[in-house]
Amino acid sequence: MAIKVHGNPFSPPSQRVLLALAEKDLDYEYVFVDMSAGQHKKEPFISINPFGQVPAFEDGDLKLFESRAITRYIAYAYADKGTPLFDQDPKKVAITSVWLEVEALKFDAAGSKLSFEILIKPLLGMTTDEGAVEQQQGQLASVLDVYEARLSESKYLGGDSFTLVDLHHVPIVNNLMKTKVKALFDARPHVSAWVSEILARPAWAKVLDVLKI
Amino acid sequence: MAIKVHGNPFSPPSQRVLLALAEKDLDYEYVFVDMSAGQHKKEPFISINPFGQVPAFEDGDLKLFESRAITRYIAYAYADKGTPLFDQDPKKVAITSVWLEVEALKFDAAGSKLSFEILIKPLLGMTTDEGAVEQQQGQLASVLDVYEARLSESKYLGGDSFTLVDLHHVPIVNNLMKTKVKALFDARPHVSAWVSEILARPAWAKVLDVLKI
Repeated sequence: MAIKVHGNPFSPPSQRVLLALAEKDLDYEYVFVDMSAGQHKKEPFISINPFGQVPAFEDGDLKLFESRAITRYIAYAYADKGTPLFDQDPKKVAITSVWLEVEALKFDAAGSKLSFEILIKPLLGMTTDEGAVEQQQGQLASVLDVYEARLSESKYLGGDSFTLVDLHHVPIVNNLMKTKVKALFDARPHVSAWVSEILARPAWAKVLDVLKI
Repeated sequence: MAIKVHGNPFSPPSQRVLLALAEKDLDYEYVFVDMSAGQHKKEPFISINPFGQVPAFEDGDLKLFESRAITRYIAYAYADKGTPLFDQDPKKVAITSVWLEVEALKFDAAGSKLSFEILIKPLLGMTTDEGAVEQQQGQLASVLDVYEARLSESKYLGGDSFTLVDLHHVPIVNNLMKTKVKALFDARPHVSAWVSEILARPAWAKVLDVLKI
């Protein structure tokens, strides 16, 4: 099999890559990285990702890391398969790129910290930092205010169709829906409708099924 | 004139966009955003960037924000002008995309905070947080260790030619060279050679000249 994903079931970036592959209906080999044994900090893993973080990705002799670079590659290299994840028109691509940056630098900055503090820390026997939760909820609320305005103008964040922008949000949105932070999404009707839409993707159900989470 | 950049001379993201335009040898109108008067938080600026941050960009009726989405648009929309800022081969583009993510999520995360703490805060009469400086220097050193290995294999971070990846680093690297953090770059020979190379771009000299900084 040509495509290999080295990931961990609880890693949102790993989930992001699996979702892109599922949307494209591509076959792949899933290689479990045992982070509790520190496999991500050792060879052979760090020869693919020198930063020692999941996921890492192989397609034949091409080796990649950084989940959003991997999904971008999948979207372009397999443009003719499954769901189109990018517009063709260069001006629409530019708009999509803006919102890709917003997800990575604004939404995820707050969303990942909240997910870690509220969901992951208790699993690891660590104590949630309530001050950090408070602060990041404020940050996330500001981002969601902008999303609410954007989603009152277009059905999806990148434009009128589902793109990589929406896809990149799914794992963290899915986590946050299990926490009190859900209230921030529910309070904004367009955001709330968008959340329902992106979490209902059949490809996401496939990922959850593969990972058994 | 078709292209307008709304920016501030001291904003590294604004500088990043001007550098892309200079590499492409494109004409543009520079609109000064007076951040001390809060212009970036008011109309008409926030109708281009609802997050109220410089830069914002217009090319005819296309309005963009997020500096890296803007430079990506410039690189593709004006592919035939000036310096090519992207490879053509899809696998090389994928590798470039990995390092674009590394710059935005790892290098800049530490570098921008250091630049703000050491250079900008004193200008604004604020006190540098030495604990934060210490911590971010540690983060940056880890990133530069990976860069040192990468740059021993290829002349530039994205590959054998100068691309958007290197370009995105220039404003923050330029700032950090004026601080004690320079020592972290100097201690790594391949990183140090790369710094000299990217800061010596004639296009960067043009930007400094336009901004009078």
